Amino acid sequence: MMRLHWSSRSPFVRKVMVAAHEVGLADRIERVPTVVALTKPDLALLPTNPLGKIPTLVLEDGTALYDSVVICEYLDQLAGPPRLFPAAGPARIEALRRHALGNGFMDFLLLWRTEMARPQPDRRILDGFAEKQAAVLAALEREAPRLDEGSFGIGQIGIGCALSYLDFRWPQAGWRLSHPALADWHAGFAARPSVQATEHVDA
Amino acid sequence: MMRLHWSSRSPFVRKVMVAAHEVGLADRIERVPTVVALTKPDLALLPTNPLGKIPTLVLEDGTALYDSVVICEYLDQLAGPPRLFPAAGPARIEALRRHALGNGFMDFLLLWRTEMARPQPDRRILDGFAEKQAAVLAALEREAPRLDEGSFGIGQIGIGCALSYLDFRWPQAGWRLSHPALADWHAGFAARPSVQATEHVDA
Repeated sequence: MMRLHWSSRSPFVRKVMVAAHEVGLADRIERVPTVVALTKPDLALLPTNPLGKIPTLVLEDGTALYDSVVICEYLDQLAGPPRLFPAAGPARIEALRRHALGNGFMDFLLLWRTEMARPQPDRRILDGFAEKQAAVLAALEREAPRLDEGSFGIGQIGIGCALSYLDFRWPQAGWRLSHPALADWHAGFAARPSVQATEHVDA
Repeated sequence: MMRLHWSSRSPFVRKVMVAAHEVGLADRIERVPTVVALTKPDLALLPTNPLGKIPTLVLEDGTALYDSVVICEYLDQLAGPPRLFPAAGPARIEALRRHALGNGFMDFLLLWRTEMARPQPDRRILDGFAEKQAAVLAALEREAPRLDEGSFGIGQIGIGCALSYLDFRWPQAGWRLSHPALADWHAGFAARPSVQATEHVDA
């Protein structure tokens, strides 16, 4: 068994578990519940992943892999002919750019929560996140009609998991009314068995 | 010409410029000075990159690429047979893991500076960064003797640029005495023409 430092609340972990389900490797991964946050570093994780982040995948030979997109690509290669990562060329760059958009969205959503939990949040930072969220959602609404072109893969997983995390942490965000094409696309994403098998839980 | 949203102070931008020099494409890139920070979002950049981050590469057809590692892979493919990104297989995963280590190091070094600039920094966050930095340097010291195995590429660029950024922002950090193998390796990295052509400047 591979061992995955895991949390039900992390969108980066979820991305890996969605990928694992998509390529049929979920039952080869033992989940090791692990809690990390900027304000709560897990010192026990540092010898395995010096960045102290999850997901971290420990292979049977002890090799530790990170970050989430590297783990996804590893699993995609391990399962057989890659399905989630296109071969070199324009389709690959497009998929990786989309993944980077979803992943960067996750990044600032987590920082946003950290900021809001401070005794004195920095208003400039909060306002910046709000502007970025509006820009990300607008960009995704424009891309939504083309998001299902080509095969399902890491680009859609990155974007879909970011939106699902937004729903998990800001259930009242109400982004669907103003982004109907994106809402449609996300409904299809959310119906995938890999996504349904990996719902966020605030344990 | 391609246009790169660029800053002399960003380690992520430097990674892209080192890659561009390594594959011989630096003179096809026009640098567009761009300042962004968590506390100073550049709203004018959001229509191009909704994450508001640099580097962002705008191709001649107007397509915008991000984040830094995606731009590096694009440039590597554009230049001809890829040199900086190994083909699928263990060497690729190893290179990407190393890149993720360097990139994650950059990520928290930037957050560390933001934290220190706050009126009331969160001591737990500062302590966490110090622990992570110690763990990253220890891990790199262990890896240093093997860092030059295989060909030079994105893994070494990620790690080397992170260390160079540490030198730029924390010139008194004094990490070399306690990490001699890593110091040796970084001296070789720093001597590369691509690295010398891209020195950080606090403009």
